[in-house]
Amino acid sequence: MKLVRFGQPGAEKPGIVDADGVIRDVSAHVADWAGAALDKQTLARVAALDPKSLPAAPSGVRLGSCVARPGNFVAVGLNFADHAAETGAPIPEEPILFNKAPNCVVGPNDDVMIPKGSTKLDWEVELAFVIGKTALYVSEENAIDYVAGYCICNDMSERAFQTERSGQWMKGKGSPTFGPLGPWLVTPDEIKDVQNLAMWLEVDGKRMQDGSSKTMIFGIRRLVSYISQFMQLDPGDIITTGTPPGVGLGMKPQRFLKAGEVMRVGIEGLGVQQQKVVPYQG
Amino acid sequence: MKLVRFGQPGAEKPGIVDADGVIRDVSAHVADWAGAALDKQTLARVAALDPKSLPAAPSGVRLGSCVARPGNFVAVGLNFADHAAETGAPIPEEPILFNKAPNCVVGPNDDVMIPKGSTKLDWEVELAFVIGKTALYVSEENAIDYVAGYCICNDMSERAFQTERSGQWMKGKGSPTFGPLGPWLVTPDEIKDVQNLAMWLEVDGKRMQDGSSKTMIFGIRRLVSYISQFMQLDPGDIITTGTPPGVGLGMKPQRFLKAGEVMRVGIEGLGVQQQKVVPYQG
Repeated sequence: MKLVRFGQPGAEKPGIVDADGVIRDVSAHVADWAGAALDKQTLARVAALDPKSLPAAPSGVRLGSCVARPGNFVAVGLNFADHAAETGAPIPEEPILFNKAPNCVVGPNDDVMIPKGSTKLDWEVELAFVIGKTALYVSEENAIDYVAGYCICNDMSERAFQTERSGQWMKGKGSPTFGPLGPWLVTPDEIKDVQNLAMWLEVDGKRMQDGSSKTMIFGIRRLVSYISQFMQLDPGDIITTGTPPGVGLGMKPQRFLKAGEVMRVGIEGLGVQQQKVVPYQG
Repeated sequence: MKLVRFGQPGAEKPGIVDADGVIRDVSAHVADWAGAALDKQTLARVAALDPKSLPAAPSGVRLGSCVARPGNFVAVGLNFADHAAETGAPIPEEPILFNKAPNCVVGPNDDVMIPKGSTKLDWEVELAFVIGKTALYVSEENAIDYVAGYCICNDMSERAFQTERSGQWMKGKGSPTFGPLGPWLVTPDEIKDVQNLAMWLEVDGKRMQDGSSKTMIFGIRRLVSYISQFMQLDPGDIITTGTPPGVGLGMKPQRFLKAGEVMRVGIEGLGVQQQKVVPYQG
């Protein structure tokens, strides 16, 4: 099943995508794609509905983030061996974790704003997963039971904020609009092998990133288990799992985003995002 | 005004503390101390009530965290010159920021659990502030307008998780119960000089930390303004501002918490917390 949220910012309704690609409104059956509504019981109940019996959303409607603002938004750093190499960092011995501000989540095709004072705005195509069941001290064996689904996250990054401002990466990861999420949240039953999905990102039509989830250092099962040793993950929490090579920071010379440029971001089976880069608008 | 939440975990009601120290139930007037209810209009409306007209809470009732689970929980590292020295770290040129998991917030007198695998559990008395109004690109001059109030936070830390597990401190800062908050949220009008408050912490009656907010490197105004350059702070978000010297990590030999020990934590004008350290209980 593909979960989607559609409508104006702050007033999104929950939907599903039917076999013909039409968004069907499920707001009569679930309040929102958030928190406890992401549990297996609710998802099974919605999956049992006849899509043709559900109202179709207006064609071309705006998409919101595929899940509502999370309680926690955790990111994994340097989780692709070839990306670690391009940034000049050693391969981590354990997953590197940091936070994105939960309120930076936006729709998959919303504009991305350049923060005030930004000089090094960068992209990162990432495979994110969303928690469906409270997870604390979870084993790798059972880890996928805790995953409600997978989606694309463009882990927008301001590299000067992240690495040149006195410690801890979160400074460069949480500006408003730094978390485009979607278009859909795809439930695990629809993904044959989550560790073998093509991942790519283009800027103004030029392919910048062209990788695969098979080169992740720490896979999804390991990450669910690992993170749950340090904090409790709640339904609706988002974990974004790191990026393959091809970010602007790793290029020679380095190459950062400018207003007017357009990113297209795709992962096999999870759809495509598109964001325009715009100046800060207060 | 002193804001308080009382009752069983997950079912707390909002209250205020009257001039005699009695908790008065304001749940007929405000849903909870969270988010938009922390704005100046709501606080002024509650302040205008006659406390004697409000129901008294049961004597000895459990206190919850003084504000509900936040949307974001930001912490400042090494923000006291003498604490930076005891950990062997240089004085930061800019505030060091990291995140605590928003769901680690607990009541001021709740038990603190030792996480599974923990070997270096440590304490940190801190002055926290809570956001009352959406803050993005705020000036230092106007910063206090965005503060709903101040409270104590014991910024519980697992030092091995924080510094020996491959990067980024948040791993050692977000385990369940790592954020005792309260007893009260004190509005700024009741605090004469927030940068001159005594701060202390005892373990089993022995004074471990004995400092003052006057030795903060970056004060409250600077922190509100600074953090708001990197992310949007929303009403109800919590920022805890760093600890004075005397943590277990800085002692020679180092000294960490054991099950059964009791912490008492105080800040002048903001009350006293008390937590017992207990093994993990699943």
